[in-house]
Amino acid sequence: MNVEIDLNCDTGESYGAYRLGDDDALLRRVSSANVACGFHAGDATVMRRTVRTCLAHGVRIGAHPGLPDLQGFGRRAMALSPDDVYDIALYQIGALQAIAAAEGGRVEHVKPHGALYHMAEADDSIAEALARAASRTGGLTLVGLSGGRLVAAGRAASVPVWEEAFADRAYRSDGALLPRSSPGAVLDSPSAAAEQALRLARDGEAIANDGQAVSLKVDTICIHGDGPHAAETADAIRAALAAAGIRIGRGTHGTT
Amino acid sequence: MNVEIDLNCDTGESYGAYRLGDDDALLRRVSSANVACGFHAGDATVMRRTVRTCLAHGVRIGAHPGLPDLQGFGRRAMALSPDDVYDIALYQIGALQAIAAAEGGRVEHVKPHGALYHMAEADDSIAEALARAASRTGGLTLVGLSGGRLVAAGRAASVPVWEEAFADRAYRSDGALLPRSSPGAVLDSPSAAAEQALRLARDGEAIANDGQAVSLKVDTICIHGDGPHAAETADAIRAALAAAGIRIGRGTHGTT
Amino acid sequence: MNVEIDLNCDTGESYGAYRLGDDDALLRRVSSANVACGFHAGDATVMRRTVRTCLAHGVRIGAHPGLPDLQGFGRRAMALSPDDVYDIALYQIGALQAIAAAEGGRVEHVKPHGALYHMAEADDSIAEALARAASRTGGLTLVGLSGGRLVAAGRAASVPVWEEAFADRAYRSDGALLPRSSPGAVLDSPSAAAEQALRLARDGEAIANDGQAVSLKVDTICIHGDGPHAAETADAIRAALAAAGIRIGRGTHGTT
Amino acid sequence: MNVEIDLNCDTGESYGAYRLGDDDALLRRVSSANVACGFHAGDATVMRRTVRTCLAHGVRIGAHPGLPDLQGFGRRAMALSPDDVYDIALYQIGALQAIAAAEGGRVEHVKPHGALYHMAEADDSIAEALARAASRTGGLTLVGLSGGRLVAAGRAASVPVWEEAFADRAYRSDGALLPRSSPGAVLDSPSAAAEQALRLARDGEAIANDGQAVSLKVDTICIHGDGPHAAETADAIRAALAAAGIRIGRGTHGTT
Repeated sequence: MNVEIDLNCDTGESYGAYRLGDDDALLRRVSSANVACGFHAGDATVMRRTVRTCLAHGVRIGAHPGLPDLQGFGRRAMALSPDDVYDIALYQIGALQAIAAAEGGRVEHVKPHGALYHMAEADDSIAEALARAASRTGGLTLVGLSGGRLVAAGRAASVPVWEEAFADRAYRSDGALLPRSSPGAVLDSPSAAAEQALRLARDGEAIANDGQAVSLKVDTICIHGDGPHAAETADAIRAALAAAGIRIGRGTHGTT
Repeated sequence: MNVEIDLNCDTGESYGAYRLGDDDALLRRVSSANVACGFHAGDATVMRRTVRTCLAHGVRIGAHPGLPDLQGFGRRAMALSPDDVYDIALYQIGALQAIAAAEGGRVEHVKPHGALYHMAEADDSIAEALARAASRTGGLTLVGLSGGRLVAAGRAASVPVWEEAFADRAYRSDGALLPRSSPGAVLDSPSAAAEQALRLARDGEAIANDGQAVSLKVDTICIHGDGPHAAETADAIRAALAAAGIRIGRGTHGTT
Repeated sequence: MNVEIDLNCDTGESYGAYRLGDDDALLRRVSSANVACGFHAGDATVMRRTVRTCLAHGVRIGAHPGLPDLQGFGRRAMALSPDDVYDIALYQIGALQAIAAAEGGRVEHVKPHGALYHMAEADDSIAEALARAASRTGGLTLVGLSGGRLVAAGRAASVPVWEEAFADRAYRSDGALLPRSSPGAVLDSPSAAAEQALRLARDGEAIANDGQAVSLKVDTICIHGDGPHAAETADAIRAALAAAGIRIGRGTHGTT
Repeated sequence: MNVEIDLNCDTGESYGAYRLGDDDALLRRVSSANVACGFHAGDATVMRRTVRTCLAHGVRIGAHPGLPDLQGFGRRAMALSPDDVYDIALYQIGALQAIAAAEGGRVEHVKPHGALYHMAEADDSIAEALARAASRTGGLTLVGLSGGRLVAAGRAASVPVWEEAFADRAYRSDGALLPRSSPGAVLDSPSAAAEQALRLARDGEAIANDGQAVSLKVDTICIHGDGPHAAETADAIRAALAAAGIRIGRGTHGTT
């Protein structure tokens, strides 16, 4: 059992005149933030504002590179080559590093966004490209699905990795996420998410959709910031963990 | 008189399937390169390829941030606030820094592109924003028009500066460039550009369009890579300088 | 005095995952809609959805072309040539025409957005380019500032024009809008906007910021949809007009 | 045997400062042009220039909508829904229609570009979305792979269709194109392309990579404009067809 668990959320997803998510509320409730880097969401000004909010709340800053598809919010898979992925990851990570440094912070981890995350979890060569990008931008901690290709690629590239589980997504008994298109894929109720988060943090397992327990290594738990109950869910998770004596914290920077 | 002078050119201006300029030819002939950073030209893949070519030829790598206007090639002024400019400069510089570092190089200077350059030379607050970006990305050398606002802002921000003159652009007697819209603004013939480059490097002056000599501090001479005679012009300049005993070199990294 | 006055608002300004404005609420309250066309806001999917909402509420569909600057929401002036403006206006109008036709509607007017509107009101050649675009896309009604360059250019191009006044913007005594940067430029209270709208519709005048009455030809009154009180303001305006016996309506399609 | 065959090529693929292809040379040699519409290539100004060149040479104007991926030139598949595809097709077709009409021409056909073409040939619902877009923009002729999903969807949507074959691409014996990743997929020599074009036009067949003859209905033959020998290949094809008494022509506007 962990006595400390990291909570991460996506953030900085506004763009120009468009506002998305309540970053200030979420960043008061998590320990790590995945900051959008301008391709699928975010722009340079939003990134700087988000970095400031992270620093104000003592939240670990991570890069959240995505596909070059603002209209699709990075959620539509694109047939990019591993080299394409490597290049756009370097570019986005570097942009955030400069902004973070200018504000007195630094980028500590990288977690791909949306379809890019799923592409990496489905294709070793994409996972390897992202691990290489993490390696060549200072040895950033690579965050990926618990037991998945990203963390395997990260270990092979000798970068720290954090294995991630999801508080509000249903699992299959093979440890994969139930696809969003399946009924029950998202745990809408704050209490269900809190229950799953506690089980993940305390027991290292989730109850799959077929009722079986799935054993999962969990370094960080992802909570989503874009749902209607985001802050409420985060509070429920924090309360459940606190009641079990588990601290929310930044922990160590990954394990190799 | 200088015994060594820097020659700089813009580079990395291809994008996706589009090729622009003969980077390999130009980068064999200059000592400093201004690498497009993805906003007005260039993309992450082109940037990486360009950084490699710079490293192969021992050319100093500089960031060449531009306005977010690919269609206009960054040549159409936009009413950005100084903070907008600061943010997009940080973003673009950081992106190139990560790519350069991943390839074993580093970014040493920053020179704004096109309309952004002219906006800075016309507005102290824009020049100051760019100097601040140079300062907060590691104290990069800021390249600006000889005697102009960028170098003044750079000095005020305690970043190294390089004062730049143009081999192939006509000057007015007040030291400003003759606008491109004026007849004779561009010196098309390689020999005219070579003659002006020599005078700039050797004597620190140019002959203005009204026949007067203009005194100019010159740390680096810009040659354009997009004209039909780019390589020929570069060769003529190099030959003229060599005949006068002036080396092409990276010199010191600016003067504060 | 008019017995019928057109109310227009900007709409369709969402983009991908980003929602902006309450289109459904606004489109129940106006008679003409200016639909963003994908450059400064809107995307093809949002455009189709917006056209459907317009048709459902019997609202006149207009094209609202903007500058190619999504991040700046089309509010940052760009140094485009008149030909650039003509080309992007044709492009955006045509895109909306196809979408409107596919849904069984048609585009009846064109009103440039944000900085493009202001560029046209400040420069005859830009106004002329937009009038030409309106002329060559079927003789669309051109909407511009009452007494301004757009309506003059529209008349010169023999397209119908609608002279526009603003319910919630303060006027100067020369008929120009008080710039947004000036205190009091925006009438925040619904009652103040309603009072001005009534005066505009009934009396053809506004009280300028120096207390003088300004005479204005008013074919349509613009109300903004992006403020916090947009629907409330629209209701106040409608109530004030109704109390004075003035109908909200689509009127005729401009006057040449 | 046909006595007249259409030759089509992609065109208008320049963008801003970037030039791609020799449109003027190609458009002197074909009877139909597929004009890029601003998503994968082209911009509003390039589109207008291309339309003018088409009209000058009497070439049939078609819309060539692509994926929203300028960097990838529309060649990287994206996971768009059929509705996404329908919307972006309408948008792009409409933009070109307005530009064509403003220049006194009109759009007669639509052929999707690159990955979008392949997505449609691999997925009935994408093909159907494109056929619907052709139907709702005036009943444009839909151009697709001979025997493929696009032409089937076009017939089902009651729009005219043209079945297309490729002069310079190798076929498999099932009538599919040999993928570009396979050796010999592209017929590089002008004479080989001319031979295949003649066989397609005269005999309605191609010799597949396994030596078998493949029977193909051919309304139009595509020639590529971006290769190094584009004009030379076009000339070889024209000469071979002329020698066989086959005219290059616009033919009828598709068959339902």
